[in-house]
Amino acid sequence: MTYCVGVLLKEGLVMLSDTRTNAGVDNIATYRKLHIHEQPGERTIALASSGNLSITQSVLSLINEGLLGPNSDEPETFANVPSMFQAAQLVGRAVRDIHRIDGESLEDHHMRFDIAMLLGGQIKGRRLRLFMIYAAGNFIEATPDTPFLQIGEHKYGKPVLDRAVHYDTDIYDALKLSLISMDSTMRSNLAVGLPLDCAVMRRDTQRLELNKRIEAGDPYFEDLRSRWSNALRAAHQGIPRPPYDRS
Amino acid sequence: MTYCVGVLLKEGLVMLSDTRTNAGVDNIATYRKLHIHEQPGERTIALASSGNLSITQSVLSLINEGLLGPNSDEPETFANVPSMFQAAQLVGRAVRDIHRIDGESLEDHHMRFDIAMLLGGQIKGRRLRLFMIYAAGNFIEATPDTPFLQIGEHKYGKPVLDRAVHYDTDIYDALKLSLISMDSTMRSNLAVGLPLDCAVMRRDTQRLELNKRIEAGDPYFEDLRSRWSNALRAAHQGIPRPPYDRS
Repeated sequence: MTYCVGVLLKEGLVMLSDTRTNAGVDNIATYRKLHIHEQPGERTIALASSGNLSITQSVLSLINEGLLGPNSDEPETFANVPSMFQAAQLVGRAVRDIHRIDGESLEDHHMRFDIAMLLGGQIKGRRLRLFMIYAAGNFIEATPDTPFLQIGEHKYGKPVLDRAVHYDTDIYDALKLSLISMDSTMRSNLAVGLPLDCAVMRRDTQRLELNKRIEAGDPYFEDLRSRWSNALRAAHQGIPRPPYDRS
Repeated sequence: MTYCVGVLLKEGLVMLSDTRTNAGVDNIATYRKLHIHEQPGERTIALASSGNLSITQSVLSLINEGLLGPNSDEPETFANVPSMFQAAQLVGRAVRDIHRIDGESLEDHHMRFDIAMLLGGQIKGRRLRLFMIYAAGNFIEATPDTPFLQIGEHKYGKPVLDRAVHYDTDIYDALKLSLISMDSTMRSNLAVGLPLDCAVMRRDTQRLELNKRIEAGDPYFEDLRSRWSNALRAAHQGIPRPPYDRS
């Protein structure tokens, strides 16, 4: 499994993903799931993927090779697509192409065509945007009302985001909250694990301010996990026991 | 949807369930999902259910009417079943009977035979036990290593239980932690909602010490929700922002 979260903020964009891939519990490996296309100052696009690894890798390869669009004479890639909306459409077309190629055979083997992607970024002169693309190639977009999107094992880490992440949250507070959300997920689900990849992009810069892999033993993340754990313990210990009558 | 949790402790048993049932988001109703059979001092059995309401209600009706067991001449019910293990087998047989009756028709309508149940309790002279029964009628049991079991929308509220609930946790602390887990679930999933039903049974008493419905506006639960919310906010605010270099 996988857990990835993207947050669209007034200040910019945060993307965070784990790297664990498993085919059964006895076949666990590390694969990068957060892919960056950067032309600093001009355009920076981040794509995070979850689902069946063969499907997500094929979709990525197809996007890198380029796909003809409805109005394009030459293949579109993240290097030349004119807007983030069209970048999301490009990803959607790649997902549909791979579904046409692999979907029926997967079904013959009782396997779901399982893929979801987060696409965030900005092209110079256009808006910073964050999309979630589904297995059918359709997509939704984050808005100031609902500034975060999640793919993969999203439920364990959703409560903390629901409570604390808003459109005007500081960009590094949003990264911190995403890391707390990832910590809760990793503690409750072995299929999500270190290392983590994170990216931070300030609005209207079209370049990554942060593009980091967080390895096991990272001092800040270790400290965050232990502080959060201690604070949660103090939090529930600080609440009185239920006073309900023995009725 | 539903969220129910059962905790087996050194001191006894805690069961907590919500009451929201929905068929689509435009058809929401309140149904009791925590069912108690009590002969004080002799036997007390609690059954919590999640899944398709028609299936869970049919299973409950069948158990109440009684079912012949492999070694019994008269119908078995919770009133006469000789052990908690045989009570779990009785529930499993009822689930399988309803599957035989309804399973194929549900499948014709592309509906899953969706049911899961928690069965906890004690019969005088026997052990206090807690089981989770699956749609196939098979079941697992909580043990001191893994003292809690959940059914329904279990992921949102699992991290806090993973961190804090142990076999030797105080029984009312376990109820408090179950309520915190329920709060996280209710905040992140509209399909889980108030009122809540909870039961507390001390080991070797075979009677409920607490059997309570928590309604909207309950002062303790309101206070717990607000304290937990404030403590979480203080907890993440107390963690420094990531110091990562802008590399």
